[in-house]
Amino acid sequence: MPKKVITFGEVMMRLSPPGYSKFSQATSFDLVYGGGEANVAISLAYLGMKAAHVTRFPDNALGKAATQFLRKHWLSSEHIIYGGNMIGKYFLEKGAVHRSSEVIYEREGSSFSLIEPSMIDWEVVLKDADWFHWTGITPAISDGAAMCCLEAIKTANRMGITVSGDINSRKNMWKYGKTMQEVMPKLVEHCDIVITSSRGIHEMFNIGQTGDKFRFMAKQLMETFPRIKKVVGKTRRSISASHQQIQGKMWNGTEYIKTETLNVTHVVDRVGTGDAYAAGLIYGLLHYGKDMQALNFATAACALKHTILGDVNIVSLDNVISLMKGDTSGAIRR
Amino acid sequence: MPKKVITFGEVMMRLSPPGYSKFSQATSFDLVYGGGEANVAISLAYLGMKAAHVTRFPDNALGKAATQFLRKHWLSSEHIIYGGNMIGKYFLEKGAVHRSSEVIYEREGSSFSLIEPSMIDWEVVLKDADWFHWTGITPAISDGAAMCCLEAIKTANRMGITVSGDINSRKNMWKYGKTMQEVMPKLVEHCDIVITSSRGIHEMFNIGQTGDKFRFMAKQLMETFPRIKKVVGKTRRSISASHQQIQGKMWNGTEYIKTETLNVTHVVDRVGTGDAYAAGLIYGLLHYGKDMQALNFATAACALKHTILGDVNIVSLDNVISLMKGDTSGAIRR
Amino acid sequence: MPKKVITFGEVMMRLSPPGYSKFSQATSFDLVYGGGEANVAISLAYLGMKAAHVTRFPDNALGKAATQFLRKHWLSSEHIIYGGNMIGKYFLEKGAVHRSSEVIYEREGSSFSLIEPSMIDWEVVLKDADWFHWTGITPAISDGAAMCCLEAIKTANRMGITVSGDINSRKNMWKYGKTMQEVMPKLVEHCDIVITSSRGIHEMFNIGQTGDKFRFMAKQLMETFPRIKKVVGKTRRSISASHQQIQGKMWNGTEYIKTETLNVTHVVDRVGTGDAYAAGLIYGLLHYGKDMQALNFATAACALKHTILGDVNIVSLDNVISLMKGDTSGAIRR
Amino acid sequence: MPKKVITFGEVMMRLSPPGYSKFSQATSFDLVYGGGEANVAISLAYLGMKAAHVTRFPDNALGKAATQFLRKHWLSSEHIIYGGNMIGKYFLEKGAVHRSSEVIYEREGSSFSLIEPSMIDWEVVLKDADWFHWTGITPAISDGAAMCCLEAIKTANRMGITVSGDINSRKNMWKYGKTMQEVMPKLVEHCDIVITSSRGIHEMFNIGQTGDKFRFMAKQLMETFPRIKKVVGKTRRSISASHQQIQGKMWNGTEYIKTETLNVTHVVDRVGTGDAYAAGLIYGLLHYGKDMQALNFATAACALKHTILGDVNIVSLDNVISLMKGDTSGAIRR
Amino acid sequence: MPKKVITFGEVMMRLSPPGYSKFSQATSFDLVYGGGEANVAISLAYLGMKAAHVTRFPDNALGKAATQFLRKHWLSSEHIIYGGNMIGKYFLEKGAVHRSSEVIYEREGSSFSLIEPSMIDWEVVLKDADWFHWTGITPAISDGAAMCCLEAIKTANRMGITVSGDINSRKNMWKYGKTMQEVMPKLVEHCDIVITSSRGIHEMFNIGQTGDKFRFMAKQLMETFPRIKKVVGKTRRSISASHQQIQGKMWNGTEYIKTETLNVTHVVDRVGTGDAYAAGLIYGLLHYGKDMQALNFATAACALKHTILGDVNIVSLDNVISLMKGDTSGAIRR
Amino acid sequence: MPKKVITFGEVMMRLSPPGYSKFSQATSFDLVYGGGEANVAISLAYLGMKAAHVTRFPDNALGKAATQFLRKHWLSSEHIIYGGNMIGKYFLEKGAVHRSSEVIYEREGSSFSLIEPSMIDWEVVLKDADWFHWTGITPAISDGAAMCCLEAIKTANRMGITVSGDINSRKNMWKYGKTMQEVMPKLVEHCDIVITSSRGIHEMFNIGQTGDKFRFMAKQLMETFPRIKKVVGKTRRSISASHQQIQGKMWNGTEYIKTETLNVTHVVDRVGTGDAYAAGLIYGLLHYGKDMQALNFATAACALKHTILGDVNIVSLDNVISLMKGDTSGAIRR
Repeated sequence: MPKKVITFGEVMMRLSPPGYSKFSQATSFDLVYGGGEANVAISLAYLGMKAAHVTRFPDNALGKAATQFLRKHWLSSEHIIYGGNMIGKYFLEKGAVHRSSEVIYEREGSSFSLIEPSMIDWEVVLKDADWFHWTGITPAISDGAAMCCLEAIKTANRMGITVSGDINSRKNMWKYGKTMQEVMPKLVEHCDIVITSSRGIHEMFNIGQTGDKFRFMAKQLMETFPRIKKVVGKTRRSISASHQQIQGKMWNGTEYIKTETLNVTHVVDRVGTGDAYAAGLIYGLLHYGKDMQALNFATAACALKHTILGDVNIVSLDNVISLMKGDTSGAIRR
Repeated sequence: MPKKVITFGEVMMRLSPPGYSKFSQATSFDLVYGGGEANVAISLAYLGMKAAHVTRFPDNALGKAATQFLRKHWLSSEHIIYGGNMIGKYFLEKGAVHRSSEVIYEREGSSFSLIEPSMIDWEVVLKDADWFHWTGITPAISDGAAMCCLEAIKTANRMGITVSGDINSRKNMWKYGKTMQEVMPKLVEHCDIVITSSRGIHEMFNIGQTGDKFRFMAKQLMETFPRIKKVVGKTRRSISASHQQIQGKMWNGTEYIKTETLNVTHVVDRVGTGDAYAAGLIYGLLHYGKDMQALNFATAACALKHTILGDVNIVSLDNVISLMKGDTSGAIRR
Repeated sequence: MPKKVITFGEVMMRLSPPGYSKFSQATSFDLVYGGGEANVAISLAYLGMKAAHVTRFPDNALGKAATQFLRKHWLSSEHIIYGGNMIGKYFLEKGAVHRSSEVIYEREGSSFSLIEPSMIDWEVVLKDADWFHWTGITPAISDGAAMCCLEAIKTANRMGITVSGDINSRKNMWKYGKTMQEVMPKLVEHCDIVITSSRGIHEMFNIGQTGDKFRFMAKQLMETFPRIKKVVGKTRRSISASHQQIQGKMWNGTEYIKTETLNVTHVVDRVGTGDAYAAGLIYGLLHYGKDMQALNFATAACALKHTILGDVNIVSLDNVISLMKGDTSGAIRR
Repeated sequence: MPKKVITFGEVMMRLSPPGYSKFSQATSFDLVYGGGEANVAISLAYLGMKAAHVTRFPDNALGKAATQFLRKHWLSSEHIIYGGNMIGKYFLEKGAVHRSSEVIYEREGSSFSLIEPSMIDWEVVLKDADWFHWTGITPAISDGAAMCCLEAIKTANRMGITVSGDINSRKNMWKYGKTMQEVMPKLVEHCDIVITSSRGIHEMFNIGQTGDKFRFMAKQLMETFPRIKKVVGKTRRSISASHQQIQGKMWNGTEYIKTETLNVTHVVDRVGTGDAYAAGLIYGLLHYGKDMQALNFATAACALKHTILGDVNIVSLDNVISLMKGDTSGAIRR
Repeated sequence: MPKKVITFGEVMMRLSPPGYSKFSQATSFDLVYGGGEANVAISLAYLGMKAAHVTRFPDNALGKAATQFLRKHWLSSEHIIYGGNMIGKYFLEKGAVHRSSEVIYEREGSSFSLIEPSMIDWEVVLKDADWFHWTGITPAISDGAAMCCLEAIKTANRMGITVSGDINSRKNMWKYGKTMQEVMPKLVEHCDIVITSSRGIHEMFNIGQTGDKFRFMAKQLMETFPRIKKVVGKTRRSISASHQQIQGKMWNGTEYIKTETLNVTHVVDRVGTGDAYAAGLIYGLLHYGKDMQALNFATAACALKHTILGDVNIVSLDNVISLMKGDTSGAIRR
Repeated sequence: MPKKVITFGEVMMRLSPPGYSKFSQATSFDLVYGGGEANVAISLAYLGMKAAHVTRFPDNALGKAATQFLRKHWLSSEHIIYGGNMIGKYFLEKGAVHRSSEVIYEREGSSFSLIEPSMIDWEVVLKDADWFHWTGITPAISDGAAMCCLEAIKTANRMGITVSGDINSRKNMWKYGKTMQEVMPKLVEHCDIVITSSRGIHEMFNIGQTGDKFRFMAKQLMETFPRIKKVVGKTRRSISASHQQIQGKMWNGTEYIKTETLNVTHVVDRVGTGDAYAAGLIYGLLHYGKDMQALNFATAACALKHTILGDVNIVSLDNVISLMKGDTSGAIRR
């Protein structure tokens, strides 16, 4: 019987010029949908888990189409709510080599940003769930989103459901009047698993100093929030937009572990690789006895996502296991 | 020496599923730009006039790309201003036969809607211009847009520049606190040429009754606003989404004239046909001695736009003249 | 609370050259999925009903992708089973005017054709269902498929679920050793609603003669199979591949009713229009008090399908109701 | 044993904006190849005859690709010669309804236009051939092309091979110093079958007057050139670019015959329909006992070509026969 | 006078999602055709040889389109036969970096698999040929295919035509009741040139042991089958799906030779690279005096194929010679 | 106030098969426009300068479309003249790894090649300009083009406008009767900045010997033509078509400077990278105090162009500065 995960957050329409075209060259946009938390849910669904994503879309043909995207990628859509007038959007221009990808967000006033605490019945949503996952993007969007997220986390705690948070967000996202320093501790204190970085820990919780090592920061974080069982990070070396290196790392309260570095030499789509990592971690922790295995699984999932178009990691379990076991050859399967 | 026209209004990004796909089938959107007033300017530029459009875009790569679209289609971009965060958008699903096209707007909070009166120096913009054109969409967007439009019209009056207004807008567009009955008279009283419908005249100025004939309504409108020299309308018969019939009509203060009906049997893109009509009218009035010729030119331009993809009528002068003279054969030109 | 329908039958991969290209011109194929019964289920899901389709796909990435197509179009995929090696296929070359569309089937040996009676637990599948629908294609595919279909129908009878059958199939489909005259009566005798034609009734049940009127044949059919409450047909006049006329007709045991003829002047995709008709009929009978309304609804749904790419009728309830009420204008909705 | 036809003439690269886009909207061109005589050869190959086309291409990758296009469409490429630097081209913008298609030629200095009399060994080429076909385009291109064409015609006469000429060309094509009045009689006098129009006969041979009936002109033409056995024409009524009507006509020395009018209500591609007619005529004369049948076949082939993208008529023999027999329904073939 | 090669084997329709899309993302498939032996023939045709491929297709529009693909790529289609109902197919999802390409075959029951010994008149087919090439795929497909292949090989022997076999096939392909150990020796004993691997030699002929060196195995193979003059192999190092390294190797009865390793750093399409190698070898042996040159030519051809979309190596002779001579720069040619 | 540059030269229609397709695989061509000098102007416009390009196009829809391309990319089109019948063209097949890109030119007889000295009023064109740039392609095209170019250069000298020339051209371009040795000195003697190579200097001016160092050659060139202030070159190492390395170098009369080598590991489009370098140099010299900075800027611009589709470098100033400062990571910008 597969385990079930619930995720919560905004899903945006992603519009990107085809291939390596720049915005000024586009006469069409490729259309997919994505959002940190839904990306995690879809990854897990492809790996064989049951997954439902909770979000809010406008009650029009665009909100329906976004829902259909989630359904197609194996999510349950039964807890999606509808209202407001605009679906959040981001425009992505894909970079190459020394040329950066450019992202333009349009999520202000979106249906999701106008969500309010009472709108989701979390007890119903979380029934039968084994895991709840959120990210630091959600509380940055609006007070309503932050409050909803807190409701969900607390309900999960109450129902004995594991909670993971991929807690980083960009400082310049926080525009609704509250700061991340104010909001994040209230959410993080109820988490079991946290994904973050040294810089994130420092910025959000005023722990340590810029430049401190991850191992040290993670330990401090766990002391501050004793519910946390594992603090997980990732070292990304960006040789260029087309060549990335990935290494997983974790402090589990007892030991500090790191994976081998995976060398992604021909990036197809860099977006959503962090979410693939989070999903890999959740899957790994649920299905492998050892943290090292879970971390290897997460790193392999993350590396594979770099070869998939769109935000969501739709590789199969086989692919991840094979890479996790060290087969980097990419040999044809017939 | 070609005549010069200035237009003012929002330009939206238009996103549409390819061909006859519905929103739920789209994996890409075709991308063009359009807006009633810019559509008029571009039509006139293709007919050989000089044309500049005034609008406001976000100061990012999307605002630049929109500007580049206008430049490509022969407009001067020198009076465009930049600011705000979002380009207005509309999503268009093309219908066929009995299936309606569907349009979803997302223009709330757009860069243009946040325009304010002081932002454009109309004396500079209108220098050397022969004509200023606006539409009833602009005052419906925001108070700032309405005020800007009024500034432009009054400046044009002062500088002796002809002003035309295609004054209808949808009632449900007026969301910012003022009504069309309140705002429109102040704009229309300074116009020389007005394009509208019986229903529009009744709704905006409380003239006549539902069902009254255009000829009667137009006469009343000219009595109410004595600056107006011609009131122009159009009868559209929608046999189906794929088959439209168009007839031009005008009350010029002396006589009521009507064109032959043009029969557009295979519609390619219905959007922007009203703007093509307005542009045809402006071109016709500036280049032909007789109102009947101007009206024939406008009707031919309108009919031809139904065969062009996108919002803007990019047919050449030859095409319009040939149809205006009665050649409906569409025979190949080599 | 929406009603729930269950459908059963093969879903094929449909491969077609883009636009009006012929097979010899194709360098790519557009890919959708379709099958008479799934088409009905999807239509009903878009109209607001709950719908699940039962079928069998190969247990590989192609079978999964087909499942994802059904999920995207709002079907429940929970009762789909997997096995065998090949998904059924058809290749469609779209015709125009006097040029016929060409269809090439490749369904011999497909996963569905190898289905066997014991494979589906119909009591589970039909739980909470209000309606079961099958077509004459299914019993023509293989003995296993016919047996499964019979199981389903009988279970539905037992559970008090209405059964409808769109019973025609092409004679040359029956290749597995049994004839339609042998098999069909056993299935039809358990049906409540039958969709067929004069020719179908004559060929399958040896009733009447070639050329007999539908009204007469339908009456005889109901006398032969007393469970049947309504016999429904459709007159299609094919002016050309691009222009079709549709009229619904029904014998309901008491009166013979016919709709107005709808005139589809610019066909986008003719495939699946019969399934849209069947779906419209089911929806109409469940939601309208009068047979005439149900038949009008069905005919409107059928006409609208001609404007939709792909096998499945994804128009909204609004569209159908509007056309059913006589609005043939296809005017833009904003 | 299928009959064999040889054709001779320029094959151009055809570049057209996709769908109904105008030149100013194109960011890509669809690429096919075409030329009046090769179009005839390909039509005949699809109808089951053996066919080889003789032409000259540049000896580079573009000339090879053009050759490959002919090979793909069943022609023998063994008699194609290579030299010069440029493949002839035409740019086609497809019109709709009242908007004309626009064609821009770039064939000056093409490899074919530089062909010279000695370059083709016609005895080798025409070995085993049953028919030789040329058009009035070829002698208009250059003196060399005209001379080569004359060589071919005379060789065919000598070898007892039937010669047909579709002799019209546009007056403004003749730029190399000779006039059509000078050149055409020398070619036409050796022809067995001539396709032309009243206007063509008048312009080229100074027979009759503008406005004279085809029947009368044809008779005169046969008196002037006694080798001619049949003079064939076609009445095209261009309702619009999207709607054409076609009727075949022939004077065979004894009687004047005309076909029914075929009504092509949804044109897909109008180019090459005259060549489809010529091919249909050749096929018809070779395979049917009666001129009326041949003419019906030709008219059906012509009508069907209007539904095919590209210059060449790739419909099958079945399609043509079915329409020739009066089935205009375009019903799906499975 | 170019040499002539005959090849024999199945040609499949290849359907692949565009670019790096996975099956679950595809809304269209790119369409080409391929098969090991036809790939060799086409390579050789592009290099300047005469080439004909012998295969069997269904007698429908799909079989014709496949034939047209071969014709376009310069093959003679005169020996293709038609019958059966299905063209063999494979679905290809292209991998990248650590993500494997996935191939799904659907060739069971294909027209080719139902071929029978008497169907091809090999004496006619092989007339004037200089070389016959087959692969180990063909005898794995069906008994009929194996028998046909044996007929061809023996006829070639009788007619003094060189026979090469690229003899490996996947063990799991052999499903029709015979094993490769049973069938392959009968075919290989009549071959002059064999392409294989250590593993292949071990599996098929029970020579040596797993892990034995190629040089040793090749020598043994030649002792077992004394007709064989050269045994050729290839070392492929798969750094990742996007990065491959290739080295040619040969035992020619006297010496063991190896080429430099070519480093393909940006793979475009990996499929068919082995066939490109085989074709390069055939060309090399026919046109160069020394085995080392032939092997260098083969390795260069193989490396270049990795940069070509589709199964077939359509590079020109220039390209191969230039790389064979050591120019790896890929500098632009103008 | 931005500086203004004027450029002069042919702009060609560029037609290329999509992606990595070869000419023989193309069923469409991607369409952009390019030419060495216009490429420079567009680069500079994207970097924020004012720029106008002077050229000659045919007075038809294709000439207009080319003009619209330049307008879209921010150039002023006011000095373009129209005449002649053909737009120059080049066909580009993109290579990968060891497979070379192939370019086929068709510019003989183009509208630009028929330009004549009197056609441009250079005093008007160069009014308010700060810089004039030309390339060695222009004088190679025709005597008229060379004369026009000389007029422009001399006028610029007279008006005190800096003149730069990117002076290399391919020897085989010079077909109109004059040699580069005859023509180039007359143009180069009036230049302030020269971009060239050792080989170019040797071939054009008979300075030094093959293999002499750039530093030495540049010094000699400046002695020969004392107006020249800087001689600029570039070392390109072509690891493969997909991997290029770039290093800038300059002799400024005092010192010889070289940049770091930039390593472009995943080339998107190699065409126009030299023009991007020239544009970067012009921008750098105008905006930075030190030659080293200018050279770094030029090299960064050149490297970035390799990641942009089409001929023109449309990266923003930010991108170039960031790379110039050493950030090679290509990290996403949000």
